[in-house]
Amino acid sequence: MIGVLVLAAGEGSRFRGNKLLARINGIPILGYVLRSLPQPRLIVAGKYAAEIIHEFPKEVVMYNPNWREGMSTSIKLGLRYFMDSEGILVALGDMPLITKETVEKILGNFSPDCSAVVPIHQGTWGNPVVLSRELYDEIWKLDGDTGAKKLLKTKNRLCFVECGEEVLIDVDTEADLDEVSRRLS
Amino acid sequence: MIGVLVLAAGEGSRFRGNKLLARINGIPILGYVLRSLPQPRLIVAGKYAAEIIHEFPKEVVMYNPNWREGMSTSIKLGLRYFMDSEGILVALGDMPLITKETVEKILGNFSPDCSAVVPIHQGTWGNPVVLSRELYDEIWKLDGDTGAKKLLKTKNRLCFVECGEEVLIDVDTEADLDEVSRRLS
Repeated sequence: MIGVLVLAAGEGSRFRGNKLLARINGIPILGYVLRSLPQPRLIVAGKYAAEIIHEFPKEVVMYNPNWREGMSTSIKLGLRYFMDSEGILVALGDMPLITKETVEKILGNFSPDCSAVVPIHQGTWGNPVVLSRELYDEIWKLDGDTGAKKLLKTKNRLCFVECGEEVLIDVDTEADLDEVSRRLS
Repeated sequence: MIGVLVLAAGEGSRFRGNKLLARINGIPILGYVLRSLPQPRLIVAGKYAAEIIHEFPKEVVMYNPNWREGMSTSIKLGLRYFMDSEGILVALGDMPLITKETVEKILGNFSPDCSAVVPIHQGTWGNPVVLSRELYDEIWKLDGDTGAKKLLKTKNRLCFVECGEEVLIDVDTEADLDEVSRRLS
């Protein structure tokens, strides 16, 4: 089993309010992400946990009290929840262009030969990534706002999957939201 | 390591509003429970998750989307989080008379010889209980509003600890709240 971890604990400081609940065609950005992801999954939330629970009452949501300390603290909470999985798919809540097909392609490339699966677009690493259980011990040692990418750069046995631009595009600013809205219309 | 699971997902239907945040001497009922419990711990919440996160911003809180289906769904979420523990202490959020000393006594009686530790007062089983990892597979099979007690009744190798009345007293009604307030004053 691959557990799906949705990182939704950032403050989104370059955005007014909670960007993950900003709507495009009436659907929150995080809603687009969720509809591309299989079960079992866990959303790790921070400052906006209450709003996220209210908006998505069917999801398992974990409040990370250390959200200010950065992404590694959310990954570690999620890892604890999926400790018995073969791997975790780490998805970002602010990448609404991700599709079910892309996620299936990434998951479909996971095998015991991969310590991780990384989607790439024209040479640039993207998200979501699959981290295999052989990395869990090292993930436990991450701290601060370090994602898993830095760790992966030190690894052999990475599996890469060529994908479209959707694996690179996140929403950080109002301008990003306009651009993504255009693509989703 | 023993993980501490605090069950706080009940609706408290015999009480106006969220009983766990009802205050005695200015401290919420759930606050009394938390101050008696060691780390690491996880609060599993339901209908009132947002209020609990707001009140206890330093706690790891998980929202159980299936809280209406009863206690077993919350225990299973917590178990997943503490999968690598030797056992879990299952505490109820509505038992504010529990003290650190009582909890230490219960935990101190746990050993590899116990499939569970159950506090008793004059022959009646109480809470919190320690469930050892050898029970985890069976806990996975619980459903509905079943706690672990029914499962324990079928087990040998239970360890019992004689405690005071605090292991029996929960707050279900306004009258209970008055009675507990009197005892805490």
